[in-house]
Amino acid sequence: MRVLILSADNFEDSELLFPYYRFLEENFQVEIASLKKGTITGKHGYGVEVDRTLAEVDPNGYELLLLPGGKAPDALRKQPESLAIARSFFSAGKPVAAICPGPQILLTAGLLNGRRATCYRSLAAEMKVAGARYEDREVVVDGSLITSRQPSDLPAFMREIMQLLRKR
Amino acid sequence: MRVLILSADNFEDSELLFPYYRFLEENFQVEIASLKKGTITGKHGYGVEVDRTLAEVDPNGYELLLLPGGKAPDALRKQPESLAIARSFFSAGKPVAAICPGPQILLTAGLLNGRRATCYRSLAAEMKVAGARYEDREVVVDGSLITSRQPSDLPAFMREIMQLLRKR
Repeated sequence: MRVLILSADNFEDSELLFPYYRFLEENFQVEIASLKKGTITGKHGYGVEVDRTLAEVDPNGYELLLLPGGKAPDALRKQPESLAIARSFFSAGKPVAAICPGPQILLTAGLLNGRRATCYRSLAAEMKVAGARYEDREVVVDGSLITSRQPSDLPAFMREIMQLLRKR
Repeated sequence: MRVLILSADNFEDSELLFPYYRFLEENFQVEIASLKKGTITGKHGYGVEVDRTLAEVDPNGYELLLLPGGKAPDALRKQPESLAIARSFFSAGKPVAAICPGPQILLTAGLLNGRRATCYRSLAAEMKVAGARYEDREVVVDGSLITSRQPSDLPAFMREIMQLLRKR
Protein backbone atom coordinates (compact mmCIF):
# COMPACT_ATOMS: atom_id res chain seq x y z
CA MET A 1 0.00 0.00 0.00
CA ARG A 2 1.42 3.37 -1.06
CA VAL A 3 0.16 6.51 0.69
CA LEU A 4 0.64 10.14 -0.30
CA ILE A 5 0.40 12.87 2.36
CA LEU A 6 0.12 16.49 1.16
CA SER A 7 1.15 19.05 3.73
CA ALA A 8 3.24 22.18 4.37
CA ASP A 9 4.56 24.33 7.23
CA ASN A 10 2.20 24.90 10.15
CA PHE A 11 0.49 21.54 9.75
CA GLU A 12 -1.47 20.25 12.75
CA ASP A 13 1.20 17.96 14.17
CA SER A 14 -0.95 15.14 15.53
CA GLU A 15 -3.05 15.03 12.34
CA LEU A 16 0.05 14.35 10.28
CA LEU A 17 2.04 12.24 12.76
CA PHE A 18 -0.68 9.85 13.91
CA PRO A 19 -1.66 8.69 10.38
CA TYR A 20 2.02 8.74 9.29
CA TYR A 21 3.16 6.47 12.14
CA ARG A 22 0.02 4.36 11.84
CA PHE A 23 0.68 3.62 8.17
CA LEU A 24 4.33 2.83 8.89
CA GLU A 25 3.14 0.44 11.63
CA GLU A 26 1.33 -1.42 8.81
CA ASN A 27 4.52 -1.37 6.73
CA PHE A 28 2.85 0.86 4.14
CA GLN A 29 5.06 3.06 1.97
CA VAL A 30 4.33 6.67 2.91
CA GLU A 31 5.55 9.75 1.06
CA ILE A 32 5.13 13.39 2.06
CA ALA A 33 4.81 15.97 -0.71
CA SER A 34 4.95 19.73 -0.18
CA LEU A 35 5.63 23.09 -1.80
CA LYS A 36 9.37 22.55 -1.55
CA LYS A 37 11.91 19.96 -0.45
CA GLY A 38 13.48 20.02 3.02
CA THR A 39 11.78 19.92 6.40
CA ILE A 40 8.26 21.18 7.08
CA THR A 41 7.43 22.17 10.66
CA GLY A 42 4.12 21.77 12.45
CA LYS A 43 2.33 24.29 14.67
CA HIS A 44 3.66 22.40 17.70
CA GLY A 45 7.23 22.26 16.42
CA TYR A 46 7.52 18.74 15.03
CA GLY A 47 9.55 18.53 11.81
CA VAL A 48 9.09 15.99 9.02
CA GLU A 49 11.14 15.46 5.88
CA VAL A 50 9.54 16.17 2.52
CA ASP A 51 10.02 13.37 -0.02
CA ARG A 52 9.04 15.29 -3.14
CA THR A 53 7.59 18.57 -4.37
CA LEU A 54 3.99 18.80 -5.61
CA ALA A 55 5.30 19.04 -9.19
CA GLU A 56 7.18 15.76 -8.74
CA VAL A 57 4.10 13.79 -7.64
CA ASP A 58 2.66 11.18 -9.98
CA PRO A 59 -0.73 10.37 -8.38
CA ASN A 60 -0.81 7.02 -10.20
CA GLY A 61 1.92 5.85 -7.85
CA TYR A 62 -0.32 5.89 -4.75
CA GLU A 63 -3.48 4.18 -3.52
CA LEU A 64 -4.51 6.65 -0.79
CA LEU A 65 -4.33 10.44 -0.42
CA LEU A 66 -4.22 11.87 3.11
CA LEU A 67 -4.75 15.59 3.84
CA PRO A 68 -3.91 16.64 7.44
CA GLY A 69 -5.03 20.00 8.83
CA GLY A 70 -3.43 23.05 10.38
CA LYS A 71 -2.63 26.04 8.20
CA ALA A 72 -1.07 23.86 5.47
CA PRO A 73 -4.26 23.19 3.43
CA ASP A 74 -4.88 26.89 2.84
CA ALA A 75 -1.35 27.26 1.42
CA LEU A 76 -1.69 24.08 -0.63
CA ARG A 77 -4.99 24.94 -2.26
CA LYS A 78 -3.38 28.00 -3.85
CA GLN A 79 -1.21 25.62 -5.91
CA PRO A 80 -2.82 24.17 -9.06
CA GLU A 81 -0.69 21.01 -8.61
CA SER A 82 -2.47 20.22 -5.31
CA LEU A 83 -5.86 20.51 -6.96
CA ALA A 84 -4.76 18.35 -9.90
CA ILE A 85 -3.47 15.66 -7.52
CA ALA A 86 -6.77 15.62 -5.60
CA ARG A 87 -8.79 15.45 -8.83
CA SER A 88 -6.68 12.53 -10.05
CA PHE A 89 -7.45 10.49 -6.92
CA PHE A 90 -11.17 11.27 -7.22
CA SER A 91 -11.43 10.42 -10.90
CA ALA A 92 -9.64 7.11 -10.27
CA GLY A 93 -12.05 6.33 -7.40
CA LYS A 94 -9.15 5.97 -4.95
CA PRO A 95 -9.58 6.70 -1.20
CA VAL A 96 -9.06 10.28 -0.06
CA ALA A 97 -9.00 11.10 3.67
CA ALA A 98 -9.01 14.70 4.94
CA ILE A 99 -9.26 16.13 8.46
CA CYS A 100 -9.85 19.55 10.03
CA PRO A 101 -9.09 22.17 7.31
CA GLY A 102 -7.71 19.38 5.06
CA PRO A 103 -11.00 19.24 3.07
CA GLN A 104 -10.38 22.86 1.92
CA ILE A 105 -8.14 21.46 -0.81
CA LEU A 106 -10.97 19.24 -2.03
CA LEU A 107 -13.60 21.95 -2.02
CA THR A 108 -11.33 24.38 -3.87
CA ALA A 109 -10.78 21.60 -6.43
CA GLY A 110 -14.57 21.46 -6.86
CA LEU A 111 -14.74 17.88 -5.63
CA LEU A 112 -17.21 18.18 -2.73
CA ASN A 113 -20.33 19.28 -4.58
CA GLY A 114 -23.13 16.93 -3.48
CA ARG A 115 -20.79 14.87 -1.28
CA ARG A 116 -21.37 14.05 2.39
CA ALA A 117 -18.43 15.42 4.37
CA THR A 118 -17.27 17.17 7.52
CA CYS A 119 -14.39 19.51 8.45
CA TYR A 120 -13.17 21.88 11.16
CA ARG A 121 -16.28 23.54 12.56
CA SER A 122 -15.41 27.15 11.60
CA LEU A 123 -15.08 26.07 7.96
CA ALA A 124 -18.52 24.45 7.77
CA ALA A 125 -20.05 27.51 6.04
CA GLU A 126 -17.37 27.45 3.33
CA MET A 127 -17.98 23.74 2.83
CA LYS A 128 -21.74 24.22 2.45
CA VAL A 129 -21.22 27.05 -0.10
CA ALA A 130 -19.10 24.60 -2.10
CA GLY A 131 -22.14 22.32 -2.29
CA ALA A 132 -21.10 19.70 0.26
CA ARG A 133 -23.68 18.02 2.48
CA TYR A 134 -21.95 18.98 5.74
CA GLU A 135 -22.41 16.78 8.83
CA ASP A 136 -21.16 17.57 12.32
CA ARG A 137 -19.84 14.09 13.18
CA GLU A 138 -16.42 12.71 14.20
CA VAL A 139 -16.07 10.94 10.86
CA VAL A 140 -18.13 10.94 7.67
CA VAL A 141 -17.63 8.21 5.07
CA ASP A 142 -19.08 8.85 1.60
CA GLY A 143 -17.86 6.15 -0.75
CA SER A 144 -14.08 6.47 -0.88
CA LEU A 145 -14.12 9.93 0.76
CA ILE A 146 -13.39 10.02 4.52
CA THR A 147 -13.47 13.29 6.46
CA SER A 148 -13.13 14.30 10.13
CA ARG A 149 -13.33 17.51 12.15
CA GLN A 150 -10.42 17.77 14.58
CA PRO A 151 -7.51 15.98 16.36
CA SER A 152 -9.78 14.25 18.90
CA ASP A 153 -11.54 12.56 15.95
CA LEU A 154 -8.29 10.86 14.88
CA PRO A 155 -9.15 7.42 16.34
CA ALA A 156 -12.46 7.27 14.43
CA PHE A 157 -10.85 8.78 11.31
CA MET A 158 -8.12 6.15 11.23
CA ARG A 159 -10.55 3.31 12.09
CA GLU A 160 -12.60 4.15 8.99
CA ILE A 161 -9.52 4.59 6.79
CA MET A 162 -8.18 1.16 7.77
CA GLN A 163 -11.60 -0.44 7.29
CA LEU A 164 -11.95 1.04 3.80
CA LEU A 165 -8.45 -0.14 2.83
CA ARG A 166 -9.17 -3.65 4.11
CA LYS A 167 -12.33 -3.80 1.96
CA ARG A 168 -10.51 -2.89 -1.26
CA MET B 1 -8.84 -4.38 26.58
CA ARG B 2 -8.07 -1.87 29.34
CA VAL B 3 -4.87 0.19 29.09
CA LEU B 4 -3.20 2.34 31.75
CA ILE B 5 -0.89 5.19 30.70
CA LEU B 6 1.31 6.75 33.39
CA SER B 7 2.53 10.23 32.56
CA ALA B 8 2.94 13.80 33.84
CA ASP B 9 3.72 17.33 32.62
CA ASN B 10 6.41 17.63 29.95
CA PHE B 11 5.60 14.26 28.41
CA GLU B 12 6.86 13.66 24.86
CA ASP B 13 3.64 14.51 23.02
CA SER B 14 3.84 12.02 20.14
CA GLU B 15 4.84 9.18 22.48
CA LEU B 16 1.66 9.66 24.48
CA LEU B 17 -0.73 10.71 21.69
CA PHE B 18 0.13 8.06 19.10
CA PRO B 19 -0.45 5.06 21.43
CA TYR B 20 -3.45 6.82 23.02
CA TYR B 21 -5.22 7.42 19.69
CA ARG B 22 -4.12 4.01 18.41
CA PHE B 23 -5.73 2.21 21.36
CA LEU B 24 -8.91 4.28 20.99
CA GLU B 25 -8.97 3.32 17.29
CA GLU B 26 -9.19 -0.29 18.53
CA ASN B 27 -11.99 0.68 20.92
CA PHE B 28 -9.79 -0.14 23.92
CA GLN B 29 -10.54 1.58 27.21
CA VAL B 30 -7.61 3.90 27.97
CA GLU B 31 -6.99 5.71 31.24
CA ILE B 32 -4.29 8.26 32.02
CA ALA B 33 -2.95 8.41 35.57
CA SER B 34 -0.66 11.12 36.91
CA LEU B 35 0.57 12.91 40.02
CA LYS B 36 -2.61 14.96 40.21
CA LYS B 37 -5.96 15.39 38.48
CA GLY B 38 -6.55 18.02 35.79
CA THR B 39 -4.68 18.52 32.52
CA ILE B 40 -1.09 17.50 31.91
CA THR B 41 0.79 19.31 29.15
CA GLY B 42 3.42 17.89 26.83
CA LYS B 43 6.74 19.46 25.78
CA HIS B 44 5.08 20.49 22.50
CA GLY B 45 2.01 21.97 24.17
CA TYR B 46 -0.61 19.25 23.76
CA GLY B 47 -2.86 18.82 26.81
CA VAL B 48 -4.53 15.62 27.94
CA GLU B 49 -7.01 15.05 30.74
CA VAL B 50 -5.94 12.93 33.73
CA ASP B 51 -8.46 10.24 34.67
CA ARG B 52 -7.08 9.38 38.10
CA THR B 53 -4.17 10.00 40.45
CA LEU B 54 -1.46 7.39 41.00
CA ALA B 55 -2.94 6.66 44.43
CA GLU B 56 -6.33 5.92 42.85
CA VAL B 57 -4.95 3.31 40.42
CA ASP B 58 -5.82 -0.34 40.95
CA PRO B 59 -3.40 -2.16 38.59
CA ASN B 60 -5.71 -5.20 38.58
CA GLY B 61 -8.12 -3.18 36.46
CA TYR B 62 -5.84 -3.05 33.40
CA GLU B 63 -4.22 -5.49 30.98
CA LEU B 64 -1.44 -3.25 29.62
CA LEU B 65 0.80 -0.56 31.12
CA LEU B 66 2.21 2.09 28.77
CA LEU B 67 5.00 4.48 29.79
CA PRO B 68 5.62 7.36 27.33
CA GLY B 69 8.79 9.47 27.51
CA GLY B 70 9.67 13.13 27.88
CA LYS B 71 10.48 14.50 31.33
CA ALA B 72 7.49 12.77 32.93
CA PRO B 73 9.17 9.44 33.79
CA ASP B 74 11.82 11.13 35.95
CA ALA B 75 9.06 12.84 37.96
CA LEU B 76 7.02 9.65 38.18
CA ARG B 77 9.82 7.42 39.43
CA LYS B 78 10.16 9.60 42.53
CA GLN B 79 6.67 8.43 43.56
CA PRO B 80 6.48 5.05 45.31
CA GLU B 81 2.99 4.53 43.81
CA SER B 82 4.47 4.49 40.27
CA LEU B 83 6.99 1.84 41.25
CA ALA B 84 4.29 -0.25 42.96
CA ILE B 85 2.08 -0.06 39.86
CA ALA B 86 4.93 -1.18 37.60
CA ARG B 87 5.83 -4.05 39.96
CA SER B 88 2.22 -5.19 40.00
CA PHE B 89 2.10 -5.49 36.19
CA PHE B 90 5.40 -7.39 36.16
CA SER B 91 4.44 -9.82 38.91
CA ALA B 92 1.16 -10.55 37.11
CA GLY B 93 3.07 -11.17 33.84
CA LYS B 94 1.02 -8.47 32.08
CA PRO B 95 2.44 -6.50 29.10
CA VAL B 96 4.44 -3.38 29.88
CA ALA B 97 5.54 -1.04 27.07
CA ALA B 98 7.97 1.84 27.66
CA ILE B 99 9.64 4.27 25.26
CA CYS B 100 12.46 6.83 25.41
CA PRO B 101 12.97 7.68 29.13
CA GLY B 102 9.82 5.67 29.99
CA PRO B 103 11.93 2.64 31.07
CA GLN B 104 13.45 4.79 33.88
CA ILE B 105 10.38 3.97 35.96
CA LEU B 106 11.01 0.26 35.48
CA LEU B 107 14.71 0.39 36.28
CA THR B 108 14.10 2.44 39.44
CA ALA B 109 11.55 -0.20 40.43
CA GLY B 110 14.32 -2.81 40.07
CA LEU B 111 12.48 -4.61 37.29
CA LEU B 112 15.07 -4.55 34.49
CA ASN B 113 17.85 -6.63 36.06
CA GLY B 114 18.77 -9.31 33.51
CA ARG B 115 16.11 -8.16 31.05
CA ARG B 116 16.70 -7.30 27.39
CA ALA B 117 15.59 -3.70 26.83
CA THR B 118 16.30 -0.38 25.15
CA CYS B 119 15.67 3.30 25.95
CA TYR B 120 16.64 6.84 24.94
CA ARG B 121 20.31 6.65 23.98
CA SER B 122 21.67 9.03 26.65
CA LEU B 123 20.10 6.82 29.34
CA ALA B 124 21.77 3.60 28.14
CA ALA B 125 24.49 3.81 30.81
CA GLU B 126 21.92 4.12 33.58
CA MET B 127 20.04 1.16 32.16
CA LYS B 128 23.18 -1.00 32.08
CA VAL B 129 24.05 -0.09 35.69
CA ALA B 130 20.56 -1.33 36.64
CA GLY B 131 21.52 -4.72 35.21
CA ALA B 132 19.55 -4.55 31.93
CA ARG B 133 20.92 -6.12 28.76
CA TYR B 134 20.72 -2.92 26.70
CA GLU B 135 20.28 -3.17 22.92
CA ASP B 136 20.41 -0.24 20.50
CA ARG B 137 17.42 -1.25 18.35
CA GLU B 138 14.11 0.42 17.43
CA VAL B 139 12.17 -2.05 19.53
CA VAL B 140 13.21 -4.82 21.93
CA VAL B 141 10.70 -7.47 22.98
CA ASP B 142 11.60 -9.59 26.02
CA GLY B 143 8.59 -11.68 26.99
CA SER B 144 5.85 -9.23 27.91
CA LEU B 145 8.27 -6.28 28.13
CA ILE B 146 8.42 -4.01 25.05
CA THR B 147 10.82 -1.05 24.90
CA SER B 148 11.82 1.53 22.27
CA ARG B 149 14.27 4.43 22.02
CA GLN B 150 12.61 7.52 20.54
CA PRO B 151 9.58 8.96 18.66
CA SER B 152 10.72 7.68 15.25
CA ASP B 153 10.54 4.14 16.70
CA LEU B 154 6.79 4.53 17.40
CA PRO B 155 5.61 2.50 14.35
CA ALA B 156 7.75 -0.51 15.35
CA PHE B 157 6.88 -0.04 19.04
CA MET B 158 3.15 -0.09 18.35
CA ARG B 159 3.45 -2.97 15.85
CA GLU B 160 5.00 -5.16 18.56
CA ILE B 161 2.50 -4.04 21.22
CA MET B 162 -0.45 -4.95 18.98
CA GLN B 163 1.14 -8.27 18.04
CA LEU B 164 1.70 -9.17 21.69
CA LEU B 165 -1.90 -8.25 22.58
CA ARG B 166 -3.25 -10.33 19.68
CA LYS B 167 -1.29 -13.38 20.93
CA ARG B 168 -2.73 -13.16 24.44
